[in-house]
Amino acid sequence: MAKQNIKNAVDARPKRPRATAGDDAEIVALNLKAAVLSPEMAAYFAKCKEKLGFVPNVLKAYAFDMAKLSAFVAMYNDLMLAPSGLSKLEREMIAVAVSAQNRCYYCLVAHGAAVRQLSGDPALGELMAMNYRAARLSRRQHAMIDFAVKLTAEPWLIEEEDRAHLRRAGFSDRDIWDIAAVAGFFNMTNRVASATDMRPNTVYHSQAR
Amino acid sequence: MAKQNIKNAVDARPKRPRATAGDDAEIVALNLKAAVLSPEMAAYFAKCKEKLGFVPNVLKAYAFDMAKLSAFVAMYNDLMLAPSGLSKLEREMIAVAVSAQNRCYYCLVAHGAAVRQLSGDPALGELMAMNYRAARLSRRQHAMIDFAVKLTAEPWLIEEEDRAHLRRAGFSDRDIWDIAAVAGFFNMTNRVASATDMRPNTVYHSQAR
Amino acid sequence: MAKQNIKNAVDARPKRPRATAGDDAEIVALNLKAAVLSPEMAAYFAKCKEKLGFVPNVLKAYAFDMAKLSAFVAMYNDLMLAPSGLSKLEREMIAVAVSAQNRCYYCLVAHGAAVRQLSGDPALGELMAMNYRAARLSRRQHAMIDFAVKLTAEPWLIEEEDRAHLRRAGFSDRDIWDIAAVAGFFNMTNRVASATDMRPNTVYHSQAR
Amino acid sequence: MAKQNIKNAVDARPKRPRATAGDDAEIVALNLKAAVLSPEMAAYFAKCKEKLGFVPNVLKAYAFDMAKLSAFVAMYNDLMLAPSGLSKLEREMIAVAVSAQNRCYYCLVAHGAAVRQLSGDPALGELMAMNYRAARLSRRQHAMIDFAVKLTAEPWLIEEEDRAHLRRAGFSDRDIWDIAAVAGFFNMTNRVASATDMRPNTVYHSQAR
Amino acid sequence: MAKQNIKNAVDARPKRPRATAGDDAEIVALNLKAAVLSPEMAAYFAKCKEKLGFVPNVLKAYAFDMAKLSAFVAMYNDLMLAPSGLSKLEREMIAVAVSAQNRCYYCLVAHGAAVRQLSGDPALGELMAMNYRAARLSRRQHAMIDFAVKLTAEPWLIEEEDRAHLRRAGFSDRDIWDIAAVAGFFNMTNRVASATDMRPNTVYHSQAR
Amino acid sequence: MAKQNIKNAVDARPKRPRATAGDDAEIVALNLKAAVLSPEMAAYFAKCKEKLGFVPNVLKAYAFDMAKLSAFVAMYNDLMLAPSGLSKLEREMIAVAVSAQNRCYYCLVAHGAAVRQLSGDPALGELMAMNYRAARLSRRQHAMIDFAVKLTAEPWLIEEEDRAHLRRAGFSDRDIWDIAAVAGFFNMTNRVASATDMRPNTVYHSQAR
Repeated sequence: MAKQNIKNAVDARPKRPRATAGDDAEIVALNLKAAVLSPEMAAYFAKCKEKLGFVPNVLKAYAFDMAKLSAFVAMYNDLMLAPSGLSKLEREMIAVAVSAQNRCYYCLVAHGAAVRQLSGDPALGELMAMNYRAARLSRRQHAMIDFAVKLTAEPWLIEEEDRAHLRRAGFSDRDIWDIAAVAGFFNMTNRVASATDMRPNTVYHSQAR
Repeated sequence: MAKQNIKNAVDARPKRPRATAGDDAEIVALNLKAAVLSPEMAAYFAKCKEKLGFVPNVLKAYAFDMAKLSAFVAMYNDLMLAPSGLSKLEREMIAVAVSAQNRCYYCLVAHGAAVRQLSGDPALGELMAMNYRAARLSRRQHAMIDFAVKLTAEPWLIEEEDRAHLRRAGFSDRDIWDIAAVAGFFNMTNRVASATDMRPNTVYHSQAR
Repeated sequence: MAKQNIKNAVDARPKRPRATAGDDAEIVALNLKAAVLSPEMAAYFAKCKEKLGFVPNVLKAYAFDMAKLSAFVAMYNDLMLAPSGLSKLEREMIAVAVSAQNRCYYCLVAHGAAVRQLSGDPALGELMAMNYRAARLSRRQHAMIDFAVKLTAEPWLIEEEDRAHLRRAGFSDRDIWDIAAVAGFFNMTNRVASATDMRPNTVYHSQAR
Repeated sequence: MAKQNIKNAVDARPKRPRATAGDDAEIVALNLKAAVLSPEMAAYFAKCKEKLGFVPNVLKAYAFDMAKLSAFVAMYNDLMLAPSGLSKLEREMIAVAVSAQNRCYYCLVAHGAAVRQLSGDPALGELMAMNYRAARLSRRQHAMIDFAVKLTAEPWLIEEEDRAHLRRAGFSDRDIWDIAAVAGFFNMTNRVASATDMRPNTVYHSQAR
Repeated sequence: MAKQNIKNAVDARPKRPRATAGDDAEIVALNLKAAVLSPEMAAYFAKCKEKLGFVPNVLKAYAFDMAKLSAFVAMYNDLMLAPSGLSKLEREMIAVAVSAQNRCYYCLVAHGAAVRQLSGDPALGELMAMNYRAARLSRRQHAMIDFAVKLTAEPWLIEEEDRAHLRRAGFSDRDIWDIAAVAGFFNMTNRVASATDMRPNTVYHSQAR
Repeated sequence: MAKQNIKNAVDARPKRPRATAGDDAEIVALNLKAAVLSPEMAAYFAKCKEKLGFVPNVLKAYAFDMAKLSAFVAMYNDLMLAPSGLSKLEREMIAVAVSAQNRCYYCLVAHGAAVRQLSGDPALGELMAMNYRAARLSRRQHAMIDFAVKLTAEPWLIEEEDRAHLRRAGFSDRDIWDIAAVAGFFNMTNRVASATDMRPNTVYHSQAR
């Protein structure tokens, strides 16, 4: 029958090549001309390629303007890699739980891979991206993610009791700043990514599964 | 320093073995004694093992009562496998988009794997689970998922215009029933899974990546 | 004046006959051709007429396909009528409270009547449909409905503490399954009814008032 | 078995007499001493008894203070009974749709009865209380209720286009004021009733069914 | 460049004179003809001019109909000025916190000024309008505003525990009525103001800063 | 009477000195020790004092760590002060509208003052903080704020049509990036401020009224 044929034709299409934007596709849905990389940023991109094997698309997205790219890189590296009472894995867990609240495709793909790699636990990345409440988290980490997600969804409801709860779970005041700062940062990047339809590097999908 | 050591100790733990409930772990957070499988259900479980290599945990979860298990299997198989104007992939896409709205860990893991397998497109499963609006869907499929997600989030807002929009996107009245029935079914199973903390089979995580 | 006349004319219309879809009207807003009833389903419809005096419209709505009708009837009868730690009234109370959260006209009318009949308390049906928190429920039933409504509105927030609360209110693990399964089922049927604009039998309105 | 017996015992209780607060019960959950009625209010209460057969509980609730009772009665009677481009039925329809959005038990019971009586259509009262979108309303009345419900749920979103839509549906600027004022009034009374757990007169339940 | 010029031209406009509707502008976005003031209302307007220096625009907005104006004034004056266990400042704090929840421009401007004046604390008016949770309130006043805001946002969730909490914070049952009545009243006026795009008198902006 | 006295005593307190945290009070609710300012940051603080008359508290809050302070300053100055198709006023309008959605006390106070100063229109700052929909904005600015607020409240709903709408309102792709980046940035700082209970400099309250 005609209708059935139409449907089958749809299903027979080369497997929806447009669902993924490959690495050679447009990274954002805005027409922004790449600038010449500054020497510092060129070195940073080279380091990414060497260590990761690729340059994360978010960096290419910012590369239309060196001031913006540099500011982003400086803040990102300080937050996610500098010494902190939070482990790198914990910071990535916050990144993914916040991005799940905001349903940000780019950040869930890129940082979900980071959680899988840093933890060596493929399911943990899925749990953070799907519903962190289903994960078997320690009391410390459950409190940390609860705070980050409340801060994401309803920041106006945070009161002293929320900070007191983190302290009771073992966090110092400096740790609380770091939880807030990482959660805040991904509330920023989630929105830049969603506003521009940013597409993650394809390579993330199969990492550390 | 002491605090740093504590943190490192935390990170050095055997990689959070409790994040995933393995196949030999408790499938639900309720103490329900497995019943003896009826001959029909024993045959069905055997067929699952033969075709999939394992029995999906949702079936084991229902296996404390043969009437409930049989009713679930009958409805599931009719909705997801019987002839329909919706392809099997489309029905699985609805399943995942609905489960994403409801943030159901079990269903996102199990049916996300199905979308990856049926489509041959690993990213499509991620897109349905993370934010279907970021996927490059055909007009037909975008309308289908929009309807299923609205029906999930705010069913009381559905009016004639919503059905008319589906018809304009090429769906028959019978197709509209099927979209509603599949979306409705996962609104049921999402809640049974969330209420019981149902854990997916570990094997799903690495399938079709 | 002209405008006033128009308004009066509107009010003078035969009392909005279209507000109710009578039993001889279209039951759903989809054009689905009734199938020939299977012998089992014909017997079931006959039993409905004998015991209730009518066939509930939801059954007529599913009667375009015998596999779907049979699966629906099997699941419905097991959930609502089979032995359970929940009384039949309690299961109907869950049905109405869930349908109130989802603002489902069909289910509120049909199951509101059931609550009135089973309880012999006309106000209880109204309370479940309007705001169960205003009802003078026992601690057991308040906990039961709280769980069912949370599971309906925000299923992703259910954690172990929610199950523990039900246990403290006297429910067994098997009872918890039944609460979840009934709540889940009406989350399905609410959506099928809302998606198809299903109209309840007129007779429900005056029952057990 | 013990548990079954307990459950049966629960169901066998005199049919949950506490679900309804009868007319001789406390009308509000606050301990407020009735004041002596002023001559005007005494006359008004007598008129209610004569015309309705009873004094609506909301009036008794306000009767602890004559200034508050008089102000309430003056505003209510002007809004609901004075000449307006909206019929009395339309004003009651707004009252019920607003109260449904706010899930106010008192107002749904009392004004649901009014809609049934004024319309002669028992189902219309149910539709307004359960989900007005399922009612077969004229374009005029649909626009009117859409505006009242949006104004109730998200008043900050009202913009000029919302007023323009009402004008296109045939409403004058004075009518728009009246829609807003009636919707606003029930947003007030819904909250006074919910804050005080106000109980409706039992007689409403069976009126005009 | 042309585009830059256009932008500059936009910024060079006389400083957006349309952002504020001055006192001589239309007070509401509805075309309603002012009625002749009754002697009582004329005296009341004169008293406003004498005591405040101006007639609040909300009174002018209601002045198309003396019955509506009188009823509004009677209820307002009783609620906000009559003896009560709540101070006048506390009633204005409720007014602003409710109006902040409803994002009502008119009421935030007019009653924010009242909080600043009555408290002599310019920041307190801002705190009530922006996020009362950031204010250093006494336990009594925090409980009072929590109740008023919950009653505004989700009135259906109020249960006996909410009233008990107010009693523990030192409020009498009569005080609870007053909190509910003031919160209810502003839920009404917020909606009348939002529905009609009511503009506050310009003078409020600079008062008591 | 005793109760009345207690209340009066409460009102007679020195005018709630705790509602405002003055400039000499704790800026955040975390115990973080100020670091020694780097020469660059010391120069920047000196410049703030010279140009503004004070150092904004947000800078003092970050001053416990020079890397974090420098990264924040670099990103802030690029976004808010560098050349852009958006005027500085427009960027501040976005800052306030986003902060209003997130109900962030610090950012509303500080950037509300900036809107008043840059626009010379005291009411415009209030409108952005209370409900931008009540402002008489140009089509361009209405579209800009609509996008920023949708991106704040429901970033996952942004689709190509939202970008197309901005282009039709006259924005270039680079402008769209800037709208997204400014909106994103304040979604970050709102959360850092809310998480730490950051208090604005008192001086903002009376600026440009």
